[in-house]
Amino acid sequence: MNSKSTNRRGFLKGSAALAGLAVGAAPFTRAQTLSTDTPEARPPKDLSYGERSRFENSVRTVTLGGVRDIIPGLPPGEMGQRLTPLQDSTGIITPSSLHFMTGRGSRLPDIDPREHRLMIHGMVDRPLVFTMDELKRLPSVSRIHFIECAGNSGMSHYKAMVKGLEVANSPALTKSTYVIQQVHGRVSTSEWTGVLLSTLLKEAGVQKNASWLVAEGADSNHHSKSIPLEKGLDDVLVAYSQNGEAVRPEQGYPLRLVVPGWEGVSNVKYLRSVKVVDKPYYLKVETANYTNLTPDGKASWYEFQVGPKSLITYPSDAHQLPSRGLYEITGLAWSGRGAISKVEVSTNGGRTWKDARLQQPVFRKAFTRFRLAWNWDGEETLIQSRCTNEYGDIQPSMRELGKLWGDKREPQVAGSDVEKFWQDAPIMEFFSNPVQPWKVARDGSVQDALYKS
Amino acid sequence: MNSKSTNRRGFLKGSAALAGLAVGAAPFTRAQTLSTDTPEARPPKDLSYGERSRFENSVRTVTLGGVRDIIPGLPPGEMGQRLTPLQDSTGIITPSSLHFMTGRGSRLPDIDPREHRLMIHGMVDRPLVFTMDELKRLPSVSRIHFIECAGNSGMSHYKAMVKGLEVANSPALTKSTYVIQQVHGRVSTSEWTGVLLSTLLKEAGVQKNASWLVAEGADSNHHSKSIPLEKGLDDVLVAYSQNGEAVRPEQGYPLRLVVPGWEGVSNVKYLRSVKVVDKPYYLKVETANYTNLTPDGKASWYEFQVGPKSLITYPSDAHQLPSRGLYEITGLAWSGRGAISKVEVSTNGGRTWKDARLQQPVFRKAFTRFRLAWNWDGEETLIQSRCTNEYGDIQPSMRELGKLWGDKREPQVAGSDVEKFWQDAPIMEFFSNPVQPWKVARDGSVQDALYKS
Repeated sequence: MNSKSTNRRGFLKGSAALAGLAVGAAPFTRAQTLSTDTPEARPPKDLSYGERSRFENSVRTVTLGGVRDIIPGLPPGEMGQRLTPLQDSTGIITPSSLHFMTGRGSRLPDIDPREHRLMIHGMVDRPLVFTMDELKRLPSVSRIHFIECAGNSGMSHYKAMVKGLEVANSPALTKSTYVIQQVHGRVSTSEWTGVLLSTLLKEAGVQKNASWLVAEGADSNHHSKSIPLEKGLDDVLVAYSQNGEAVRPEQGYPLRLVVPGWEGVSNVKYLRSVKVVDKPYYLKVETANYTNLTPDGKASWYEFQVGPKSLITYPSDAHQLPSRGLYEITGLAWSGRGAISKVEVSTNGGRTWKDARLQQPVFRKAFTRFRLAWNWDGEETLIQSRCTNEYGDIQPSMRELGKLWGDKREPQVAGSDVEKFWQDAPIMEFFSNPVQPWKVARDGSVQDALYKS
Repeated sequence: MNSKSTNRRGFLKGSAALAGLAVGAAPFTRAQTLSTDTPEARPPKDLSYGERSRFENSVRTVTLGGVRDIIPGLPPGEMGQRLTPLQDSTGIITPSSLHFMTGRGSRLPDIDPREHRLMIHGMVDRPLVFTMDELKRLPSVSRIHFIECAGNSGMSHYKAMVKGLEVANSPALTKSTYVIQQVHGRVSTSEWTGVLLSTLLKEAGVQKNASWLVAEGADSNHHSKSIPLEKGLDDVLVAYSQNGEAVRPEQGYPLRLVVPGWEGVSNVKYLRSVKVVDKPYYLKVETANYTNLTPDGKASWYEFQVGPKSLITYPSDAHQLPSRGLYEITGLAWSGRGAISKVEVSTNGGRTWKDARLQQPVFRKAFTRFRLAWNWDGEETLIQSRCTNEYGDIQPSMRELGKLWGDKREPQVAGSDVEKFWQDAPIMEFFSNPVQPWKVARDGSVQDALYKS
């Protein structure tokens, strides 16, 4: 070993920087440091399919806003949404057990894969039906992509954080208190494996004049969605695998459409049919819902693409900083249109910004993890991130977003209680991607500073 | 939609190619194809941490070869090894629940992360002790890497496939019958997140003349391993996260060393101490075990790096081909020294080879998924893959490996029953990476063709 490494000090160099870290610069005893020789007291288990440590308790929470199981007058027992604990995320892969989900109905479909079929039909030369075994023999690809609900970060979720407890009387609410999860937790990233939809469409032979697809699920609601044919021939995936094993029931087992970079509702679960057609089908989910109102009062239909978006996941409002000193600020950035090229972080309320380090390689239409060292001086401040994608699209501030969209109401609500609840809901319910500032207080607590700003 | 897509036919084009696929070129009825509208009968569950479908049963199996719980005379109740079902793998990520494990002892350590400490000491200027919270504040990285047991694909595992049932009388054996899993299942790939060991070493200040590290775990065996300092200052990771959540107990919760590309035993689990020293410690695991005998009868100590290796995972001896026709041959390739640059596949017993398609991007010291379309004519044949890494190292055939290593005996066995069992064990027990041929029979069954060849 050469002597060059002697006294090299990186991140922690300097006594000021060390102040916040209780590392053992002071003398220590061997007894202290080896005290982790824990008796191996865990009962023997079936190790055929492993579990996490009993000390780990990161879980998905139920949604607070806009959803059936907490709003009076809606059917009881609906599954609603389960939200990813982004505050605990690391790297870019979301564990399948913590992938966000939206349940349409009261129970998860329980599909026997031996009975499942996928039909490609409509304006095609050769209608095709595939079993799961047949699909798995076809040329496959694996792609790392995020899926995000179009309603993620919608203003109603902020409202629910403030007013939810007054409206609903659900025990679930008492555990659901973090903006990072309740407002932003409808996005997750997986390695998806399956067959490109273009492979199936080419084999079926798409007819002239065809221009749209309608994808349909085998769930009891027959969830369906119109998708432009051009996208279907681009990068859409018929996925049977997620993170190295079968797609989870919550994600559409045994088969789901993955429509990279587009709103979650297009990623049809329990996929059983893709019909080639010559127009969109104006389905309820694409007209009465998943739309923003434009300033002239009309609804904006058929928006698809998730805008550039980023979020500091640590520290966020789920965390408490124990002391001043060194921290690594880290978070996630993603864009429906392409790769993230830059993430800037401000730790002084937006006065100055620094480029964060991006985890390599950067995947298109996937989470990009960013990281930046930060020495907190113990004073109150605002921290926030903003990202830019490869086309130069920049994540807007809330003020910029407000100018763009004006003051909107959610279009689809009905019933007096619900109406009252949403009455003063602010702008942009879908495809909302404002910069999210967190306020760090002098006591180390962290709070949302967007809704209140 | 322009008309160019009309009649474009890709992979399935031509009637010969279609012969093996029961796709619906024949007329079909709507009733048939929509029969998957399954009643949603699954009982409501706690959705806070999701589970896989009840129809999925891919599991880790216990090892057949060289391990305590099936060999007479060794302590009962030892955990032994649990092997990844590579035959079910997709993409490059291994689900954490299916990551291979080696248990040293009878139970998994059950460590409370609040009590756990990591000590950096020995030949350093400033000995350091970190809590888990302190480590998580430091600059972090996420890296996708494989971990492989040095004994993976060792000849004794082949022997056990043939002779195991005669020697041991374990019920576990009756389920454990695939070479793809029993011989090769000691390798898995994850996205690991943590702090580079170099960050900690630089802060501690490595002293002149230091040249080795000894890493030690908090398990009851205090598993320890000598590692060259040069490697520790390169890409070694102190990992607290695996695939987006805490490292699993089977993988060293709450902290494990990840030593990219090097034998699994170096990736110390339950990591509590890294001591900087000036020589290797000649520990039992690095002298009496994890060594190959050289032709002159001496043991080859301190080999580390996993050679270029690949394996067809589908079809393999866990599969049965239903009929002649089109298949996608797919598998995994990896190399401890760097990135995979090429994977060739032969479907005619090695007479000719074709370049397989590599999943992009290719990560260094990680699984690379390869894929190649194959039209099986229904005749008996041998299929196999061989890979080349970025330095031009080529995976050897068994014959080439045999020339290199001669006929070796496993050095560490003792006791008459055990000795008898291993008596005629063939060459190379550790770092074995021969090309693995599979024999496809006319009835569509697939069998190992390496041991028998």
